Amino acid sequence: MEIMRVLDDLVCSRRIGGLQAASLRLLQNQAGDWQVATDPVGAPVGKWVFTTTGSAARVAMPDPRVMTDLTICGIIDHWVDEAADAA
Amino acid sequence: MEIMRVLDDLVCSRRIGGLQAASLRLLQNQAGDWQVATDPVGAPVGKWVFTTTGSAARVAMPDPRVMTDLTICGIIDHWVDEAADAA
Amino acid sequence: MEIMRVLDDLVCSRRIGGLQAASLRLLQNQAGDWQVATDPVGAPVGKWVFTTTGSAARVAMPDPRVMTDLTICGIIDHWVDEAADAA
Amino acid sequence: MEIMRVLDDLVCSRRIGGLQAASLRLLQNQAGDWQVATDPVGAPVGKWVFTTTGSAARVAMPDPRVMTDLTICGIIDHWVDEAADAA
Amino acid sequence: MEIMRVLDDLVCSRRIGGLQAASLRLLQNQAGDWQVATDPVGAPVGKWVFTTTGSAARVAMPDPRVMTDLTICGIIDHWVDEAADAA
Repeated sequence: MEIMRVLDDLVCSRRIGGLQAASLRLLQNQAGDWQVATDPVGAPVGKWVFTTTGSAARVAMPDPRVMTDLTICGIIDHWVDEAADAA
Repeated sequence: MEIMRVLDDLVCSRRIGGLQAASLRLLQNQAGDWQVATDPVGAPVGKWVFTTTGSAARVAMPDPRVMTDLTICGIIDHWVDEAADAA
Repeated sequence: MEIMRVLDDLVCSRRIGGLQAASLRLLQNQAGDWQVATDPVGAPVGKWVFTTTGSAARVAMPDPRVMTDLTICGIIDHWVDEAADAA
Repeated sequence: MEIMRVLDDLVCSRRIGGLQAASLRLLQNQAGDWQVATDPVGAPVGKWVFTTTGSAARVAMPDPRVMTDLTICGIIDHWVDEAADAA
Repeated sequence: MEIMRVLDDLVCSRRIGGLQAASLRLLQNQAGDWQVATDPVGAPVGKWVFTTTGSAARVAMPDPRVMTDLTICGIIDHWVDEAADAA
């Protein structure tokens, strides 16, 4: 599971039906690239999270029929900055 | 889900039967690489979109038997340039 | 689906049974790396093609039991050089 | 399967239900990026391990319903440093 | 399918049960990274091979319940050096 940071909400009125009304988040990965993830945990902007990909991303949603390939699995609260300082 | 930009249509007369008559789009990802995606939403050239990969790309099509591994999920209308300006 | 160029045939006498007698092609992707793909469309050497990965690569074969993770989906005939010139 | 090194435990109180109480580890891959993996073997900090991704990561867990896409498969005990010296 | 070279055997006494007694090989890909693969064909050290990933890696094993995400599919005997010379 990858470690990413929440940049913003993603407002997107025109989307495929398979995404339903899933909450979408704009994330930034460690290489600096942007990704869009579905968010079942309600991660606040600025927080570090870890994400799951592939078929696991679908089953991680409350409704596994949502057509995502990236889902936020959990919020990391305190240790990343310490680890970054130690690196 | 990755964020990409629509470059062009892809005209391809000789293709496997599993792609059926799916609309194909030429996209450019954030690294500058080109990708080919199936497009069930009708994304105009020049627009930013986000895409889903793997088995989710198939189920995201109206007919899930289409043999794609990259499908456009939604069109991002206005915020990307602002985010790019802020970066 | 990725865009690659056909470099050569791949002759490989010692292979797993799951590949059966599938035609194998040596491709080069946009980063310059070499890949091996199964080829159900008969792509000539030097042509640009687009390929599908993952489980879609298997279902794209006439016999979906062939153990591939990269299959040529279609041949791109004319537009790539123009696009490369315009880039 | 990728070769990574165990950096730390990952304490994460707010996570999706699908992760259950799975033990989470912070790993570093060969490119220096951080990843989060589920750990069914109890790998100590500092050890080199190899990991499996995708749907195999789920079936590699004692309970295959755990929503992971990266699972530690085995601990490499002694040879990596020798190989690194020889490289 | 990726092209890699066999570097060594991988001796690993502590592994998950799902790997059973599968033969493990240390490979190097074209970017120079190390990977661990299951080997149903008995590839000798130093040989160039091509590998399959994802769910295809499991079905490529004689026993598809082996929890791998990278399996050697075939041995490339003679042409790679010529191709490298020509590149």
